[in-house]
Parts: sequence; C-alpha cells; structure tokens
Amino acid sequence: MEGEQGLSVLEICKRGRAAAQRMQTASSELKNAALAEIGKVLESRKGDIEAANAADKSYAEEKKLSNTLQKRLDVTGPKFDQMILNTEGVAKIEDPVGKVKMATELSDGLELYRMTCPIGVICVIFEARPEAGVQISSLCIKSGNALLLKGGKEAANSNEVLVNCVREGLEAVGLPKDAVQLVSTRDQINELLSMDQYVDLIIPRGGNALVKYITDNTRVPVLGHADGICAVYVDKDADVEKACNLVVDSKAQYVSVCNAAETLLVQRSALSTHLAPIVKSLSDAGVSIKADPESLALIDSKNVTAAGAEDFVTEFLDYVIALKVVESVDEAISHINAHGSHHTDLIVTENTSTAERFLAGIDSANVYHNASTRFADGFRYGFGAEVGVSTTRTHSRGPVGVDGLLIYKYRLYGNGHTVGGMAKANTPFTHKPIEPTYRPQRSNEL
Amino acid sequence: MEGEQGLSVLEICKRGRAAAQRMQTASSELKNAALAEIGKVLESRKGDIEAANAADKSYAEEKKLSNTLQKRLDVTGPKFDQMILNTEGVAKIEDPVGKVKMATELSDGLELYRMTCPIGVICVIFEARPEAGVQISSLCIKSGNALLLKGGKEAANSNEVLVNCVREGLEAVGLPKDAVQLVSTRDQINELLSMDQYVDLIIPRGGNALVKYITDNTRVPVLGHADGICAVYVDKDADVEKACNLVVDSKAQYVSVCNAAETLLVQRSALSTHLAPIVKSLSDAGVSIKADPESLALIDSKNVTAAGAEDFVTEFLDYVIALKVVESVDEAISHINAHGSHHTDLIVTENTSTAERFLAGIDSANVYHNASTRFADGFRYGFGAEVGVSTTRTHSRGPVGVDGLLIYKYRLYGNGHTVGGMAKANTPFTHKPIEPTYRPQRSNEL
Repeated sequence: MEGEQGLSVLEICKRGRAAAQRMQTASSELKNAALAEIGKVLESRKGDIEAANAADKSYAEEKKLSNTLQKRLDVTGPKFDQMILNTEGVAKIEDPVGKVKMATELSDGLELYRMTCPIGVICVIFEARPEAGVQISSLCIKSGNALLLKGGKEAANSNEVLVNCVREGLEAVGLPKDAVQLVSTRDQINELLSMDQYVDLIIPRGGNALVKYITDNTRVPVLGHADGICAVYVDKDADVEKACNLVVDSKAQYVSVCNAAETLLVQRSALSTHLAPIVKSLSDAGVSIKADPESLALIDSKNVTAAGAEDFVTEFLDYVIALKVVESVDEAISHINAHGSHHTDLIVTENTSTAERFLAGIDSANVYHNASTRFADGFRYGFGAEVGVSTTRTHSRGPVGVDGLLIYKYRLYGNGHTVGGMAKANTPFTHKPIEPTYRPQRSNEL
Repeated sequence: MEGEQGLSVLEICKRGRAAAQRMQTASSELKNAALAEIGKVLESRKGDIEAANAADKSYAEEKKLSNTLQKRLDVTGPKFDQMILNTEGVAKIEDPVGKVKMATELSDGLELYRMTCPIGVICVIFEARPEAGVQISSLCIKSGNALLLKGGKEAANSNEVLVNCVREGLEAVGLPKDAVQLVSTRDQINELLSMDQYVDLIIPRGGNALVKYITDNTRVPVLGHADGICAVYVDKDADVEKACNLVVDSKAQYVSVCNAAETLLVQRSALSTHLAPIVKSLSDAGVSIKADPESLALIDSKNVTAAGAEDFVTEFLDYVIALKVVESVDEAISHINAHGSHHTDLIVTENTSTAERFLAGIDSANVYHNASTRFADGFRYGFGAEVGVSTTRTHSRGPVGVDGLLIYKYRLYGNGHTVGGMAKANTPFTHKPIEPTYRPQRSNEL
C-alpha cells in the first residue's frame, strides 16, 4: 500500500483502534455509502485486479500448488461480478448496530438500555480466496468494526490491490481508510498475537493447523474451530432410506469441509436391518469405511478396513468414514461428547423421545434430528453472510453471522440520581421492563 | 474434602467435565431441589461452619490481616442467615436454560432453533468472603454448569466446610457432587490455567493483580475487569447542584469499588461557574484532588495538589480524584477512551444532544447521563445476582448476571432433509421466522 509500507505492528494497531473509535459512531448511511463506493472502485480497477490476480496465479502454477488452490485463487469473470454483488448485498442488510436488546426502568426516571455496538478491532486471518477479504471487510464496515486482515502469501498481489480498493472506498466517503488494514507477513501476525490491548477478537479462517497455532499463541479471544469431527448416529428406530440418504449426504456431499461427517455410529439392535443398506449407499458414493471389530465382522465389502482408535478422533476430509457399533443412544452421546469436536452431530430416528434425548445430551454447537450435518452453515441458517464457525463455548457458537462481530453497552439515563440519595430517601428499585416503543430508539451515531 | 484429597488437577478437570455433561440436562425441578437441600445442609451444619469460620478468623487475627479483611471473613449471625436466603432466592428465579432465542424455518419441514444452554465448566477464583463461594455455586447449579472454585487461603477452613455442604446437597438429590469442586492451592490454579480443553471460562473475582495474572497466563476465556478507572465529565450545560451530587456520589459513596469515579473532567467554559462548588462538595466529603496545572491555578484549597500524568491512569480506590480541564465533549471522549478502563463513565449535562454524543462516543461497558457511576452493578441493574463485571469486548460486557454463564446451541429438526437433495430438486430456502408459540418449547432435560 502506497505510503503505508513498513509500518510497525504497534502503529498498525494504534491506527486500528483510532479507526474503530470513528467507525463505532458512523451512521448507517455513511457505512452503506462506503460499501457502494467500494463496489465502484472495484469496477474501475478491474484491470489492475486482473493483472495482480494473474501474477498470483502464475506464481501458484510455477510453485505447482494444487489445482484446488489455484482455482480458489481466481477472482476474475463471474467471481469478480459476484464480489461486487456481495458488497452491495451487505449494504442492503439492516444495520445491526444500535439495536436496543433490553430496556429496564431501574427506578423512577432512571432508565437502562442495553444496546448493540461493535466489538472494536477484529483481526481476520484467511487463506487463498482473495474475494473473502473483500467480503470480511464489508461485514466489518457494516458492523462498525476496524479490521486487520492477513491473507495467504499465494494471494499477496490480489489481496493488496483489493484492500487498496476497500480503503479508497472508505476514504471517498470520509471514513478512515485505516478501518481496513492489510498485515503482510507471518512475523507481523506473531507480533499481533501479543497485542491484546489493541486487538479485541481474532478470527482464523483456515485449516486445523492455523487455528491451533493462533489459539495456542494469543491471549486475545479467538473465534473459530480447530476440527470438524461430526458424527451421525443411526438409531434402531431410524427409517432405513432416510438413514442411507442422510449418512451419504453428511459424509459425501462435499468431503473437504468442517460440517462433513467423519464418524458413523449404529445402534447394535439396528445392525441386521440398517447396516447393509447404509454400507451399500456409502460404497456407491465412493466412501470407504474404517470399521470397529463388531461391524467389520458383519460387512462383506472391499471398501471396508479395520479402524484404529485414532480413526474416531480424525478429521478425514475425504471419502472415508469411521464406523462403530453402540448399544444405545446414551452410549452414542458419551462417544460423541468424548471423541467429537463439538461442531455438528446428527441422530437419525423416527422416535422423537430418543431424538430429544440425543439433542439435549450432545454438547455440540449444532445438534440435528433427521437433517444432514451439511446444513451447519451461516448462509443456510439465513444469516446472509458467515463470519466463521465457532466451537468455543463463549461469545458465539456455531455458524456466526454479522451478530458475532457485535457486543453491547449499557446506557443509563437519569436526572441526577445518586446511590447515596436513593438509600437515604429509601427510593425503591422498580426494575420494570420498558416497552421498546416508549422512547424513540437511542442513536449510536455522532 | 474426605476422600477427595490429593486429586490431580487433570482428574479434577475430568470430573468437572463429566459433571457438566450431567448438569446440562438436569431438570429445573432437580436443580431447585438441590438448592433447597443445600440450604438445609447448611442449616444442619451450622456448628461445623461456625467452628471452621472461627479457625479462619483467629488465623487472620494472628497474622494481623486488615480489619476490613477480617470483617469480610465472617459468615456467622445475619450473614449466615442471608447465605441460606440467597440460595433459596436463586431457586426461585426462572430457569435460564433451554430458552428459545431464535427460531427459523429454513425450508419446508426443516426447522432451526437457537436455545440457551450452559457453557460447561466454569472456574471461579474469589478472595476472602466465604459466602461468595456458596452464592457462585448456586448460580452455576441453576445455570447447569460445573464449577471449579478457588477461594482465598485465609478462608480455607470455611470454604472447605461450605463446599462440602453444597456437594452433599447435590448428592442428596442425585446430581453429581463433582458439579462443585474446590481447588485448594495456587499451584493447582497454575495447572488449571493450562487446561483449556476442560475449562471453558475463568472468572477471577478479586483485585487488579489477580485478574491481570490470570489473563496473562491462560488461553481459557476470562470474564472480568482488571481496573475500574471511571470518569465523570462535567459539561458547560451541567446543572451545578446535580454536578456536585453526582461527582460526590460517584467518587465517595463507596471508594474501594470498581465503579467509583477516579477521574473528573471539567469543560473549560464551565470552570468559572462549576469548579468552585464541585471542589467544595468534594472537600466536604473528605476527597482530596490531584489537579492539572490549569485547574490547580484556579483552586484555593488545602485538599488540592498537582497531578502527574500517572494520576489519570490510576485506580485510587480512596478519597482521591484526578482533575483535568478539557475544551469540549470531544476532548473528554478522547481522554476517557485513551486513559479509562472501559468500565463506567458519566456525563453531567442538561444538553441532550451533547449527552448523546458522549454516550455514543465513549467506548465503555456502561455510559451514563446524569446518573452516578455507582449504579454499575448487577443487583441495581435487576439481574438478581451478579457473576462479575466484565470490561472485555466479547461474550458479556458490564455487570454480568446468570445469563453470562450461558451460551446457546442450534437444534435442527428435519424429515430426512439433505443438502444434495435440496439442490437437485431446486427446493428453496425460506428463512421464515417461526412463532415461538408454534411448537411447545423444546426441552433441554433428559
């Protein structure tokens, strides 16, 4: 970025915090104008973007990076148009900032409002797909946060020109361009991880190794998931056809994602009726099975081998599933809570009381009854856009939409109310809910 | 604890996780029965509790601990009765677990519910007041969490007998006694800090040094506040009498707490009218002032000395306040955002548009207009009980009630729905909100 080269990480952080303070009071109109402007700048810089992207793609070819990765690098053609459409799409969603989530009269004339506000400075680390940087920028702008963005080395040229477009768009409407800053090197990320005074949340969007590394090396809260070890439990009361379809879709509809199933548990009393058709469906879908001794003895298929203990804690991300026999729904619950990654787990059964027992007992972000694990996704949940998927147990859990970029603050309006004065006069606390319509909504804009 | 001595930290953690999995599906009735039973056990063990408490108190006297600390140690007489009343009080509040917070039809027959659930295993570190351990236990039981409790060394005997009462109460109704475990030594806490696989949230309730130490030494999310550097800004449009009352109450109503004011900012154009009466009120309340050069030159009082830069980032917790002149509400906002601790800040003004500017621009958990900073408290906010106060920007912010011990999970109910099947049949996503009354509320109980 012109003129921004060689900034220290501390300086980047300070600029981020200052930008966050401006962004938190930016009006909806201004934020949406910035998003519209970013779309225009991207359009006008199409040539530069294509040139930068071509450089990244030829580097990837030269380095013989995988075909998947090379495909993900591309931001031209329909992907370019979609990137602009997505930015415009974020402008259209309702402003999530400044919403009253709770309002209480504490005492006569003393009114408390809990209102949504931005978190502050968010650091997002993403791999490959350069258009993801633009999408994340749009969501952070919409939610009034400042963003420190670190992309993959293989997309360095594309990311730089794209982030410059975003910054130009911000500046054009009078918002601070430092609301979105690019962090270039791995060293800078390491330094950033120690900046808990300036960075309020880190979202690593990438593989297992990346997320683990980040979580292990920072005091800043991390939103993400290291693993997606999802399980399907087929109960004795499962409909056989549904079980086959759900197991195949959960496992094989798209194998390289975190919401794909890795473990299949079948109830012992369902083996004679359900196992053969499920194994056939999996084989037809090209899935090999790693089976525990009990199920292995029952299966006659060349797609089956013996499972080891490690197969039940492995995220295969491939056409492979680990199979185990369990006695009951309770054993399924124990197995999943102990071996799974608390991401998404499914029970297939026509027995609603067994289903409820499973849904209550499984300690995961997403617990499903007769629906594919592949539905665990922000877009499918209707969030409009997905910030990431979280398997932590604080702040946000499961697919995280733009709401995950928000926190709240309490506003208290009084008329000279003091704690000592209330005590002396014996003034009671009333703690009455205030109707949201009682007052025009308090504004978060300057 | 009999038979529980010498457990390794890992074993304590594993028992905590197992207990958490049982607690997450405990019915409201069972949890309330446990709370009632704990009250009874406490009553029946009154003699043992008094004896243990006497031992702690004589140790404190022997070691010449401060009078305040010795007073806080006491759990006899009215404090004993209150402890039992509080436990019964927690039984009476509505069960916060299993509440539907969002419900959406994703597609025909495919229904998504976001439901509150416990976080899992919570570690709370508290100092002195032994009855706090019982209160925290009650809140964790009510919210279905397992608790690892670490009290102060000076209350070791009291804590041990009290926690044993809690465990007996749990066991009496068939809930796992390991839902509440006592962690005894500092070494064990250090080991616990590395157990992020087993501990989901740490709440240090104590001084600055404790909170900083914990935050600096763990990857587990921490809910708390290191400092309470709260500010009062007196605007030119402030009512003089309100300003005097609010400054005195915020500073001096109770000086040793985190929501007491430590900084006073006065607008330059208000100096001639507002400064003298405010200084007099503070002097009358026994407060000394550390003044910046501009205000120092205007004040003729023996209670005033020159402020250094460090006085504006100091939590005095005493009858001392730092005073600074600012040009405008914007300078006040900048000063507070840069020097404060994002806890609670107050503007005194009759000008509502200036007030709104302040409330929007201040990046703190609690932002007040014409009301004392001392109101920043879970009980005053009507939360019934307070878990702690948070100045972090994720999960929970400000005074945290029992809701801060909860997260949510997503339940998805389908009828064999698959992602591949929907794509093939071109089945649309509908994303229609579901009326909460549409179905009987899904239960979280086993």
